[in-house]
Amino acid sequence: MAEQGRRELRELTDADSLRLLGTVGFGRIAFARYALPAIRPVNHVLDGEDVVVHANLGIVPLHVDRQVVAYEVDTIDEHTQLGWCVILTGTTEAVTDPDDALRYEGLIDPWLPGSPYRIIRIHPDIITGIELVGP
Amino acid sequence: MAEQGRRELRELTDADSLRLLGTVGFGRIAFARYALPAIRPVNHVLDGEDVVVHANLGIVPLHVDRQVVAYEVDTIDEHTQLGWCVILTGTTEAVTDPDDALRYEGLIDPWLPGSPYRIIRIHPDIITGIELVGP
Repeated sequence: MAEQGRRELRELTDADSLRLLGTVGFGRIAFARYALPAIRPVNHVLDGEDVVVHANLGIVPLHVDRQVVAYEVDTIDEHTQLGWCVILTGTTEAVTDPDDALRYEGLIDPWLPGSPYRIIRIHPDIITGIELVGP
Repeated sequence: MAEQGRRELRELTDADSLRLLGTVGFGRIAFARYALPAIRPVNHVLDGEDVVVHANLGIVPLHVDRQVVAYEVDTIDEHTQLGWCVILTGTTEAVTDPDDALRYEGLIDPWLPGSPYRIIRIHPDIITGIELVGP
């Protein structure tokens, strides 16, 4: 198959990457659990440069504070393979301030219904954004 | 927001999880790189119970052989939050047999255009599948 020849890769600036991430409410968080890689879908909201998510990750709990995680959001169309993809690497911080927690709870649905949750903030240290465009 | 109350979570069997994964050509692989979590979108094909992907992961190379990875595929609708999500944890194996490699190359597009690639097979040790359905 020669589909890949028809697409072109463009790197996005950090600012554009964050802006695009903020237009979508849903991504995947990758983290280590017992030294094994784990990945879970979550809903998010962008707050400044920070990505805020629910840590109700079902059977694989995330250590909510001071853990390095990767976060990925994309809008790649399965058939055309066009769209964008933004990947952050950063450190988590548990949201403990009650006012902040309440505000975020109003903005983000937990991904899994009925799960208990905590809210975490991911501060990105590395931002990678690419756009796959047609010829 | 009370959206989460309207959805119901159902666990999928391993067989159903793999069957659904095979209906989609695209997922996200999570792996450790220099002890940090990394995540990349890739195209895949299902071969028996194995998930076969291109290891052209852009700036973060994957050690293609004998690495534990997580692989996630979902069809969750961003707005309704309904759909399914399948997550595998397994070990990679580089595809070195030339006939196998040629066959897989005909079946899977590399995700990033123009990148050099190798083909890897992920044999799942743990399969988690859930379905989020309406009331």
